[in-house]
Amino acid sequence: MTDTVKKLASRGIATEEMKILSEKEKIPLDFLMQRVANGKIVIPRGSKRSNLKVVGVGEGLSTKVNVNVGSSTRHINLDMEVEKAKISQKFGADTIMDLSIGGDIDGIRRKLMEVTNLPFGTVPIYQAYIETAEKLGSPIHMSEDTMFSAIDKHFEDGVEFATVHTGITLELAQKLKDNPRTTGVVSRGGSVLATWMLHNGLENPFYKNFDYLVEMAAKHDVTLSLGDALRPGAIADAFDEFHISELTNNAMLTKRAWEKGVQVMIEGPGHMPLNKVAADVKLQKSLSNGAPYYILGPLVTDLGPGYDHISSAIGAAIASSEGADLICYLTPAEHLSLPNVEQVKDGLIAARLAAHAGDIVKLGEKAYEKDLEMSKAKANLDWDNICGLSFDPEKASAIHTQFTSHKDGGCTMCGEMCVFLLLPQLLKQNLDLGMKKLSRIE
Amino acid sequence: MTDTVKKLASRGIATEEMKILSEKEKIPLDFLMQRVANGKIVIPRGSKRSNLKVVGVGEGLSTKVNVNVGSSTRHINLDMEVEKAKISQKFGADTIMDLSIGGDIDGIRRKLMEVTNLPFGTVPIYQAYIETAEKLGSPIHMSEDTMFSAIDKHFEDGVEFATVHTGITLELAQKLKDNPRTTGVVSRGGSVLATWMLHNGLENPFYKNFDYLVEMAAKHDVTLSLGDALRPGAIADAFDEFHISELTNNAMLTKRAWEKGVQVMIEGPGHMPLNKVAADVKLQKSLSNGAPYYILGPLVTDLGPGYDHISSAIGAAIASSEGADLICYLTPAEHLSLPNVEQVKDGLIAARLAAHAGDIVKLGEKAYEKDLEMSKAKANLDWDNICGLSFDPEKASAIHTQFTSHKDGGCTMCGEMCVFLLLPQLLKQNLDLGMKKLSRIE
Repeated sequence: MTDTVKKLASRGIATEEMKILSEKEKIPLDFLMQRVANGKIVIPRGSKRSNLKVVGVGEGLSTKVNVNVGSSTRHINLDMEVEKAKISQKFGADTIMDLSIGGDIDGIRRKLMEVTNLPFGTVPIYQAYIETAEKLGSPIHMSEDTMFSAIDKHFEDGVEFATVHTGITLELAQKLKDNPRTTGVVSRGGSVLATWMLHNGLENPFYKNFDYLVEMAAKHDVTLSLGDALRPGAIADAFDEFHISELTNNAMLTKRAWEKGVQVMIEGPGHMPLNKVAADVKLQKSLSNGAPYYILGPLVTDLGPGYDHISSAIGAAIASSEGADLICYLTPAEHLSLPNVEQVKDGLIAARLAAHAGDIVKLGEKAYEKDLEMSKAKANLDWDNICGLSFDPEKASAIHTQFTSHKDGGCTMCGEMCVFLLLPQLLKQNLDLGMKKLSRIE
Repeated sequence: MTDTVKKLASRGIATEEMKILSEKEKIPLDFLMQRVANGKIVIPRGSKRSNLKVVGVGEGLSTKVNVNVGSSTRHINLDMEVEKAKISQKFGADTIMDLSIGGDIDGIRRKLMEVTNLPFGTVPIYQAYIETAEKLGSPIHMSEDTMFSAIDKHFEDGVEFATVHTGITLELAQKLKDNPRTTGVVSRGGSVLATWMLHNGLENPFYKNFDYLVEMAAKHDVTLSLGDALRPGAIADAFDEFHISELTNNAMLTKRAWEKGVQVMIEGPGHMPLNKVAADVKLQKSLSNGAPYYILGPLVTDLGPGYDHISSAIGAAIASSEGADLICYLTPAEHLSLPNVEQVKDGLIAARLAAHAGDIVKLGEKAYEKDLEMSKAKANLDWDNICGLSFDPEKASAIHTQFTSHKDGGCTMCGEMCVFLLLPQLLKQNLDLGMKKLSRIE
């Protein structure tokens, strides 16, 4: 380990990953370096994996999508989790987190890190919680050392980012006791920490010893993802005192991490009525001086079980358009069950579609080229490209031929009444379906 | 037929349907009558069906969802279309349109009107087109009489609303020849009319003879849905001169229909980047003095084939929150194929979720009660209600038990680490999950 990527950027040293990212994202290298230096862009990297895909998260870059995989205490199937990781990579996930809480947590994590080269994140407190519960009967007996040891082990393993619930303080947990919210604490790590703090009357170790945490992260150049223990779990709880107080704490801590050259993302909602999403992104960006925003959903109704990938895609698209940088996907199984492989795929594609819809607004023309290609393909009834340019070419192709093997001309929706047959035939010489309308997208 | 519902409302006469609607939508009867009188709310009703469900569309009411069913020239299966109509009614569609263009169009329409009691709409020009093409070889030989006769037949059959492409003029069609757009004309009816006008050098009969159309509608108290022949079929075409010119024409015609006591909706997008959706709704409302807005999607990316129900749910949720009144669903088969029954259901639920997400913003507390019940059910791990309150209880329940038959306590996502087990156990006496936070939703 020479130095953190953030420190290198500050010194004007362009690393290989910065050069790759500059080209991939079509953003000038000096802009990119400046943003890495001032914390507005993170390039997650740990200290171990040499084959890591270079992914950037932050201002001016395309919106990225994270997939969560991992075992539950009630369902442990390594093969299934491996399949989820593989399908996530295949269908365009940008980062992946292992949230395993059941079985051989170390073994699962290490295996999943082998089968994908996406930046890999974990929530080490889960392991501290589970192992303490197994050894001592209850997670409230966790020692601070156990918590930090779990983090150290994950960093040593080479994870590129980790969620740590730094922003929930003892004071906030105590206020929560006296000021109940609709769904309390819905973050697993947050719930564990709140319980631990209230039971033991002790401050959050990650808040109290934040500088130590930062040292650990700097050593391995791991990106800290400051978790939202108090995220709203119901849209009634969005923008309440807890949600905003924790965000404020995390924003302050961000700046302390930056001073030590550590990369930081801040995590956000949760459930939120759709008209609050833009304000939420603006608030996070303003409080944190533009730290990358890693947002779950937001889910724009609480009625989504079975369809929460759609509920969250709505909020995510708005968030992406307003400047959110990394979207955490949700699957149709959210609130109901550990997802299966197909549900992981459905959730990922919904989130990618949402991220892209936001990019069209946020990034303009450079995000829009593929849409224009698709529109040309539609107008030309070029089914290979209509299906090929979609998020899941196999699925699109299967739907296209579900009632017919006919692949020429229109589809079974409009048949001979296809709008791309009649009028264009008449106007053939005048219909120029070229790139000239690109400038319309502002 | 005594008089149109709009005229009755103007005279201060409260009909049975107004009373039902006032109660169902929790809106004072006098407010409702005033809005029906000034055209801001429509209550679709034709002259025939006695068992019709009372549905209101417009300002201050919940956002409604329309489902399209019907045969294609290439796939004609009455049983499947009947199943689609039934599943639409079962899963909460508010209105239904038959867009059949293949087979016995009259027979399909009449059958579908029997199996559902939802307000029923058609696009009569389709039948005129298809029958002319069959009889005379090409739809460009349609006579004006054929076009109006198709409308008359549908009105006589008792449809409650009908799309007529009134706003595309010969001048606009001619401009289109010289100023191509990315995807030209993507409305089937609009494409037929544009072709017909350009080939014959004649004005749009529905524009030219709009007052005659209005008389026909008044006779049967059918709601006219002014179609958007020039809707953007690619997000590059959104808000272009054609899109806006047609909207302007339809807004002017709306006021002429209102003078004759005829109810009107105006149809809109199409494809549109998500940051233009709010402006689109505001523009429609402003131009038309608040006529109900019937909006397709909007689709917020062109890359959606296979997932266009999600692409359109994103736009629809924003539109609903901004004041759109009726959302036309899209299925995963959009741009690819006639949908099957399952795809109709998926599209409907995505649209209903979007409409509801908008209602939470637009209508506040009264739209939000069920979300709060759901949040309480989640916090109480009350699986019967979590599944029961969702958009598809059977699907939610199947997902909940996909890896286990265990129905007590947490689910297979978090197992014993469930956030609703640990902290609430500690804080049991303090966690009040009541209704008191309702006021947070503004």
